[in-house]
Amino acid sequence: MTFLQGIAASNGIAIAKAYRLVEPDLAFDQKTIENVSVEVERYRQAIEKAKAELETIRDRAKVDLGPDKAAIFEAHLLVLSDPELNTPIEDKIKTEKVNAEAALKETADMFVMMFEQMDNEYMRERAADIRDVTKRVLAHLLGIQLPNPSMIAEEVIIVAEDLTPSDTAQLNRQFVKGFTTNIGGRTSHSAIMARSLEIPAVVGTKTAVEEIDNGDLVIVDGLKGEVHINPTPELVEQYRQVHHDYENQKAEWAKLVNESTVSSDGHHVELAANIGTPNDLKGVVANGGEGVGLYRTEFLYMGRDQLPTEEEQFEAYKAVLVGMAGKPVVVRTLDIGGDKELPYLDLPKEMNPFLGFRAIRLCLEEQDIFRTQLRALLRASTFGNLKIMFPMIATLDEFRAAKAVLEEEKQKLVSEGQKLADKIELGIMVEIPSTAILADQFAKEVDFFSIGTNDLIQYTMAADRMNQRVSYLYQPYSPSILRLVKMVIDAAHAEGKWAGMCGEMAGDETAIPVLLGLGLDEFSMSATSILKARSLIKNLNKSDMEKLANEVLNMQTTSQVVDAVNAAIK
Amino acid sequence: MTFLQGIAASNGIAIAKAYRLVEPDLAFDQKTIENVSVEVERYRQAIEKAKAELETIRDRAKVDLGPDKAAIFEAHLLVLSDPELNTPIEDKIKTEKVNAEAALKETADMFVMMFEQMDNEYMRERAADIRDVTKRVLAHLLGIQLPNPSMIAEEVIIVAEDLTPSDTAQLNRQFVKGFTTNIGGRTSHSAIMARSLEIPAVVGTKTAVEEIDNGDLVIVDGLKGEVHINPTPELVEQYRQVHHDYENQKAEWAKLVNESTVSSDGHHVELAANIGTPNDLKGVVANGGEGVGLYRTEFLYMGRDQLPTEEEQFEAYKAVLVGMAGKPVVVRTLDIGGDKELPYLDLPKEMNPFLGFRAIRLCLEEQDIFRTQLRALLRASTFGNLKIMFPMIATLDEFRAAKAVLEEEKQKLVSEGQKLADKIELGIMVEIPSTAILADQFAKEVDFFSIGTNDLIQYTMAADRMNQRVSYLYQPYSPSILRLVKMVIDAAHAEGKWAGMCGEMAGDETAIPVLLGLGLDEFSMSATSILKARSLIKNLNKSDMEKLANEVLNMQTTSQVVDAVNAAIK
Repeated sequence: MTFLQGIAASNGIAIAKAYRLVEPDLAFDQKTIENVSVEVERYRQAIEKAKAELETIRDRAKVDLGPDKAAIFEAHLLVLSDPELNTPIEDKIKTEKVNAEAALKETADMFVMMFEQMDNEYMRERAADIRDVTKRVLAHLLGIQLPNPSMIAEEVIIVAEDLTPSDTAQLNRQFVKGFTTNIGGRTSHSAIMARSLEIPAVVGTKTAVEEIDNGDLVIVDGLKGEVHINPTPELVEQYRQVHHDYENQKAEWAKLVNESTVSSDGHHVELAANIGTPNDLKGVVANGGEGVGLYRTEFLYMGRDQLPTEEEQFEAYKAVLVGMAGKPVVVRTLDIGGDKELPYLDLPKEMNPFLGFRAIRLCLEEQDIFRTQLRALLRASTFGNLKIMFPMIATLDEFRAAKAVLEEEKQKLVSEGQKLADKIELGIMVEIPSTAILADQFAKEVDFFSIGTNDLIQYTMAADRMNQRVSYLYQPYSPSILRLVKMVIDAAHAEGKWAGMCGEMAGDETAIPVLLGLGLDEFSMSATSILKARSLIKNLNKSDMEKLANEVLNMQTTSQVVDAVNAAIK
Repeated sequence: MTFLQGIAASNGIAIAKAYRLVEPDLAFDQKTIENVSVEVERYRQAIEKAKAELETIRDRAKVDLGPDKAAIFEAHLLVLSDPELNTPIEDKIKTEKVNAEAALKETADMFVMMFEQMDNEYMRERAADIRDVTKRVLAHLLGIQLPNPSMIAEEVIIVAEDLTPSDTAQLNRQFVKGFTTNIGGRTSHSAIMARSLEIPAVVGTKTAVEEIDNGDLVIVDGLKGEVHINPTPELVEQYRQVHHDYENQKAEWAKLVNESTVSSDGHHVELAANIGTPNDLKGVVANGGEGVGLYRTEFLYMGRDQLPTEEEQFEAYKAVLVGMAGKPVVVRTLDIGGDKELPYLDLPKEMNPFLGFRAIRLCLEEQDIFRTQLRALLRASTFGNLKIMFPMIATLDEFRAAKAVLEEEKQKLVSEGQKLADKIELGIMVEIPSTAILADQFAKEVDFFSIGTNDLIQYTMAADRMNQRVSYLYQPYSPSILRLVKMVIDAAHAEGKWAGMCGEMAGDETAIPVLLGLGLDEFSMSATSILKARSLIKNLNKSDMEKLANEVLNMQTTSQVVDAVNAAIK
């Protein structure tokens, strides 16, 4: 039995067999072969096996994930049958008398390099296809089984170095009971995805991949951030009890689904949800969300090969507004760039993408993209309670420039006879330190603030939250972060505006008491965190939390703040 | 006559012929050749020409730049004579009947790729050597002249896309009268270098490389950030007058060299210099520096293949302390990582190096490196007025950890019988927003602050200052930056400590009035800016500047602040 401590990324307990989503070692020796025709035949058989495998994966993907996701495997099948790849490989075997592995690797590497050097994102993606396919054929040549996540057919816990969005897209949700990864923190993709799927997850274990073999029994404790490998039967029994208690707890919380969120001394706050697509709405409604505090529109632009049309966007925005039936919906305009790339935009590579040309910076430059989105939003505005929010605003000049573009599109639509909502609130994300520091000036011109803590923390601490070596500096409870939050809330209230938060911190049990005390009006979080947060807030006294907030603002370190909060709410 | 507007990076006027330091186009067609022996001979001649050229460059470099800098050309000569490179190229010409250009390029590319894939920084650098040498031979094959900056023998203005530290190291200072570059801002390497060499420079012109041909007459106006190409004789005459006036102005400033820096109403501040090596001291003394406000120790670690020993460091620190003869010397401990790499440390590549594992973060992990530096500093402390400063401090926990290491080394040295200075002030760079925001808490534990505006601005605005596309957000006069500066100064004074500034902003004419008003105690800048700053401050009234500072803190935009300062000091 082995124990790993990681970061609790998604609540709940999972107990199942491990499934390693790990790149196997495909190293081989280059050899001179005797019998050329046997080697060519061995190569052709590996190709056939890879084809059969890919066809099964493609068919499964069509059913489970839809035809879009299946298309990538279709592309891989085309590469496998391409004589432009196969002929030179077979020639190499014949003329140079090298083994199939070497012939495949050298030829494929040449093609990959050739495609990668092309000045065209589409061709560069072909390089990735060739690399994937080569890996699969090589594995068959070596008799090694590649992980095929889409083929999982029993309950498993996924063990990986990290999970990318495309990894998770290929997982069959029915059978994946939990995640554990070597790297990542509470705000990494894998963590956010796990919460959205309501799958228990422990990330940042550092060594899960090294410690866990395929088929090991694993307990993922997403409440405490613990992973137990091949536990004793007693421990399994104990955890079944914890799981049971947690499910009961969730059932208790579920009773709050139609209640409003009011502290024990009668102060109301709004608990809203962060969403990525209209599909997320059922989770929001099921978990009693009082609104959508952050609609990340990037997903509309991703996983495709051209920009979404105004009409496609209009339909998505309308669907969300209609689905929320008059409850507030805060839509963030496109936040692309940084670590979120769109292949078809062909943005330049940057040395520090998190400090680069992204979000509103890009939209103010590439105004066609921005205007199309704004028109779609304005046209959808009559279908519900729409609020528009600009991301990554650093200066008032930027806000004014973005607002001017919005006003222009508004005038154009009105003159075209388009009906718009009477009032559309216009706000900004506060995720750059300068904007928090100057919030009193911004508050004179915006209708609301939404504090984006994921970015605000990384900029304020000058620490990339995706970089394991400095992740210790990602400190939501740092007094410096709390002071910035206070500046923003106070600035909003001084001008009669409201302040929300849509970073991970808004759903965090340790942060919520302080945020309530600081006067935060709206808390927007993963839908699955809402009921638990409501239960917590109903038991908190706002005026006590105000005292707590005043204390922690003058503390020196994060650990002092955590201790003070724990003492106050125990 | 053409005019370009850029960014004034280093004061003064230069008028001279253009010298383009620009990569020429070395494209060629692959051809089948008839006469193999003629082609091989053509290749050998190109090699001989490249050798002769490199030998001249090496000899010139030995005299002008010293044997260290010449060593790189020696390495290139070795590559040129290497049969492991030349034999396969000649074989390729003979067997494949391709032209020498193609044979050279293909063979060299293969070696470059091979070396680059090696897991060893030394071998990867060999890839750079091969690339450089190939370029030179290819240029000879094509009859194209490569720029040879070290061979410049008449007065010139250097025109380049950008200048790297290694470019500037190869320039002959005697003949280089000015710089102009397409990219960069006031804090780019080329700008800092130009100020340190006292060479007028205009950076960020966007199109200097496209607009200026070799031999064009160019005026670089480093006062206004203007570049004039092939000006009229009248304009040249006019600029000779400006140059003359500026030289007179400098002569006036020079009279202030031994004066202290006192505002018109009698408030004293300290004007110190930023230095990189003991060699910079003569500039500090010549320009009347009242101390060293920032000794960047990184240079001790760079351009070599292993860490400097404690003894080497001790000698450097001692030289600076002795050279400053009892005046304060603030030494910043190692700030490596981020964009500053040390090949021999083999740090991992990071996605956002500016938000990564650098400076104190690295020193607290790699304590051997840190302790060696601290020991050298402590041992040197008896030779002058040493103050030690930690870079990139984000939390009090980090400061306490770094201080504990310092104390341990102090105790060890004392128990070894080493004599140390009685009092060594210990401070921090304030260059991360969280630290400025929590300065009141830090002030209880540090002896002083030095505000590092170059980084503080880029983190506060979340904009990479090296990234042209977001450089508009590098706004030193933003009210948000000024508010952070005020927090730091007020926090220091409340605890009876002092606050300095060692970013570029400290020497900036528009910033100085506001900084004086905010109560900044020490201004550390390029040595060449000191006398001008002293002259400016002597004409400012501190209590007027306090009023100005209070006004600008409540402004909304950078342009309002600039207008207010200009109105106040006109």
